[in-house]
Amino acid sequence: MDMKACIDACTECRTTCLITLGHCLALDGENVKADRIDALLDCITLCASGVDLMARNSPLCGRNCAVCAEACGRCAELCEATPRDVVMQRCAKICRECETTCTVMAAH
Amino acid sequence: MDMKACIDACTECRTTCLITLGHCLALDGENVKADRIDALLDCITLCASGVDLMARNSPLCGRNCAVCAEACGRCAELCEATPRDVVMQRCAKICRECETTCTVMAAH
Amino acid sequence: MDMKACIDACTECRTTCLITLGHCLALDGENVKADRIDALLDCITLCASGVDLMARNSPLCGRNCAVCAEACGRCAELCEATPRDVVMQRCAKICRECETTCTVMAAH
Amino acid sequence: MDMKACIDACTECRTTCLITLGHCLALDGENVKADRIDALLDCITLCASGVDLMARNSPLCGRNCAVCAEACGRCAELCEATPRDVVMQRCAKICRECETTCTVMAAH
Repeated sequence: MDMKACIDACTECRTTCLITLGHCLALDGENVKADRIDALLDCITLCASGVDLMARNSPLCGRNCAVCAEACGRCAELCEATPRDVVMQRCAKICRECETTCTVMAAH
Repeated sequence: MDMKACIDACTECRTTCLITLGHCLALDGENVKADRIDALLDCITLCASGVDLMARNSPLCGRNCAVCAEACGRCAELCEATPRDVVMQRCAKICRECETTCTVMAAH
Repeated sequence: MDMKACIDACTECRTTCLITLGHCLALDGENVKADRIDALLDCITLCASGVDLMARNSPLCGRNCAVCAEACGRCAELCEATPRDVVMQRCAKICRECETTCTVMAAH
Repeated sequence: MDMKACIDACTECRTTCLITLGHCLALDGENVKADRIDALLDCITLCASGVDLMARNSPLCGRNCAVCAEACGRCAELCEATPRDVVMQRCAKICRECETTCTVMAAH
């Protein structure tokens, strides 16, 4: 597993979660689900810090990836709970891929 | 108006908006107001980029402050609409102060 | 010009600049060029805030894109000054593309 | 130890590191020390993600604080190596305080 693949996975995951966040806020209007927003924001935060650390090959990037994998997994779980929403389904898929990549990176 | 005052105002505004965001998500549960979350997230984003640019005395910090002032003003407006919530009221006050400081900085 | 294209351009530009930043810090060792680091950090900051705002279709994203275009242009210029470094050349190209996309988005 | 104290410590640490980063880039000109910039950027990244997570009381904030404490400790060490520079000395002190606070938070 090279670092570049994990940078790409976190980059795509962050942008996808941001788009999903916009989707949730636009869609739900007055009925936004707080736990979903929380999970998306955690994922956005940790993918961003992951890319920042990995791009400079920081000694802390493995440990950050371990936390990021957890954020991705939890976000995927919440997105999977909305099986009929195509944006949420795509987000779930991207989050699962990022979770896998970050788990591998964390083990190095 | 010195830069340091504007860095401090944006720093405080960002953290306050993040706490207010947590408050809104925890409070509202299934009934989060999307426009409020949007306004808080805009303010959080622009205060963060403002501090990043000002701390390095970037040539772009004045223009960023102009956009940040607008984000702060809109966030303050939405927070002021909840007069009985002490967290929202404090956030409104901090946002108004940051709006003022950023407006001055943008004019330089 | 759709928003999605600009989100993608800013996403790629941010990650590319982060990788270039790591490259500059690793390469130059004791001789990092400060103006280059500054230009990369400005670009990283403004591409990040751009993606955050556009993903939620914020009313402020056009104005932020105008500032981002300027950051991209300045970063490209500094990267172009190192014509024999393939990482810097790639970064220059990505920054120029992002500059173009953000300029169009800013005009909307 | 309450969360608010750790949010404040990370907030102050991030802004201080950003100012120190600007100071290093302005001061050193053509002779920026790469390891110092790397340590400051790691600290800036992890304090930012820490505040983001803690403000929403994320289940991941303890683990992030553990990584952040390490970033703060390493940054403090590098700043302490420049005993005659008052900006670096202040940064070292703030980083050490943040390291302590994050270590306590991580243990919860």
